[in-house]
Amino acid sequence: MGKEQAHTVKSYEQELTQLRGMTTAMGRLVERQTGLAIDAIVEADIHAAHEAQALDPQVDALERDVEALAIRLLALRAPMAGDLREIVSALKITGDLERIGDSAASIAKRSLKVEAAPVDVPTGGLRGMGRLVQENLRRAIDAMSGQDSAGAVEVWQSDAAVDELYTAMFRELVTYMMEDPRTIRSCTHLLFIAKNLERIGDHATNIAERVYYAATGEMLPAERPRGGGTVSR
Amino acid sequence: MGKEQAHTVKSYEQELTQLRGMTTAMGRLVERQTGLAIDAIVEADIHAAHEAQALDPQVDALERDVEALAIRLLALRAPMAGDLREIVSALKITGDLERIGDSAASIAKRSLKVEAAPVDVPTGGLRGMGRLVQENLRRAIDAMSGQDSAGAVEVWQSDAAVDELYTAMFRELVTYMMEDPRTIRSCTHLLFIAKNLERIGDHATNIAERVYYAATGEMLPAERPRGGGTVSR
Repeated sequence: MGKEQAHTVKSYEQELTQLRGMTTAMGRLVERQTGLAIDAIVEADIHAAHEAQALDPQVDALERDVEALAIRLLALRAPMAGDLREIVSALKITGDLERIGDSAASIAKRSLKVEAAPVDVPTGGLRGMGRLVQENLRRAIDAMSGQDSAGAVEVWQSDAAVDELYTAMFRELVTYMMEDPRTIRSCTHLLFIAKNLERIGDHATNIAERVYYAATGEMLPAERPRGGGTVSR
Repeated sequence: MGKEQAHTVKSYEQELTQLRGMTTAMGRLVERQTGLAIDAIVEADIHAAHEAQALDPQVDALERDVEALAIRLLALRAPMAGDLREIVSALKITGDLERIGDSAASIAKRSLKVEAAPVDVPTGGLRGMGRLVQENLRRAIDAMSGQDSAGAVEVWQSDAAVDELYTAMFRELVTYMMEDPRTIRSCTHLLFIAKNLERIGDHATNIAERVYYAATGEMLPAERPRGGGTVSR
């Protein structure tokens, strides 16, 4: 009961700020998880691989916390217009963040398989793609945290470059496997890792679209800029 | 103004029923899209491949419609307790449904690449997995439509079998590529198709978890039953 009362005393504005803070914290957490996952595969950093996987329960717990607070705000505060859009966006964005966390954990797990394999495979191509995806994700979380619609548009536009890097990586890996079939098992893991990075980029773009909508009440066009053609998507 | 009035005249109960109906319609649509995608790859049905991809804009439009109605209900009806949980669940479930649609479209697109390749590859292993995923998805939508928590638990339990089939498929395809490197390009598409099917199964399980929560106010355990070990996840 004491806890309930403490909550009730908080102002509506404080609770909205708290929701924003929790969503941003979740964003920063999956951003860190993504960075660790990229180090795990590109720097062969086993410690980072374990750390990235270990963050998963925290990400899931934050998603549940955001949802509980959003439901509380909806039930008790009857938010309208921009506030309502922001709360609904937070509910949707945490879904994207949770999947980014899943993708990061999957990259980390696969990096251990690649490390443990007897044959070396080229992970360098993932470095540039990883860096770009990490940067886009950081900017998406920044835009979210600052309700910055212009920043959101920038993220939304730069996803095409991620797609192009993915397509190049796909081709390179298939060629590599054909030239040396002993690398097939490890290269399939790299293929999935590249796909996971591309998906993280996609989710960052979804978040940017949501941020834009919450801030402006307008939707970005349904067709986002695309790179790399359709061959390997 | 006439349209607004017509809406306002609707009862709260009617609007909730409409929301349920729209979410179910979206579910049935991605269920159909998934069935077409499976036919596309397993029966080499090019017509089905195109049809599955063509459904994508309808799926996206339904997600936006559900969201608009949910926001309307939240703004004007101040729903409480079970109704509020159901509306929030609808917002989250449509995110899963949208991604199922994406996965189905991706399977369909890849099936055309596999068809067009000069080398034949074994698609038979996808038949059983496809059937099981389709069945789980159908039961998840049924549970959602009927707010059936017992049905939701059944779906939630049977995801482990999908994971096992995926792991077997992964091993079979890697072996196949090693034995005949000419099949590598097509087999990587099959690997991604198998992964997409596994993801559709995952999303069906997410939906089941949401249905259970909306119906009971309780969460299913965080750890869902898992099959197939961790090797290729």
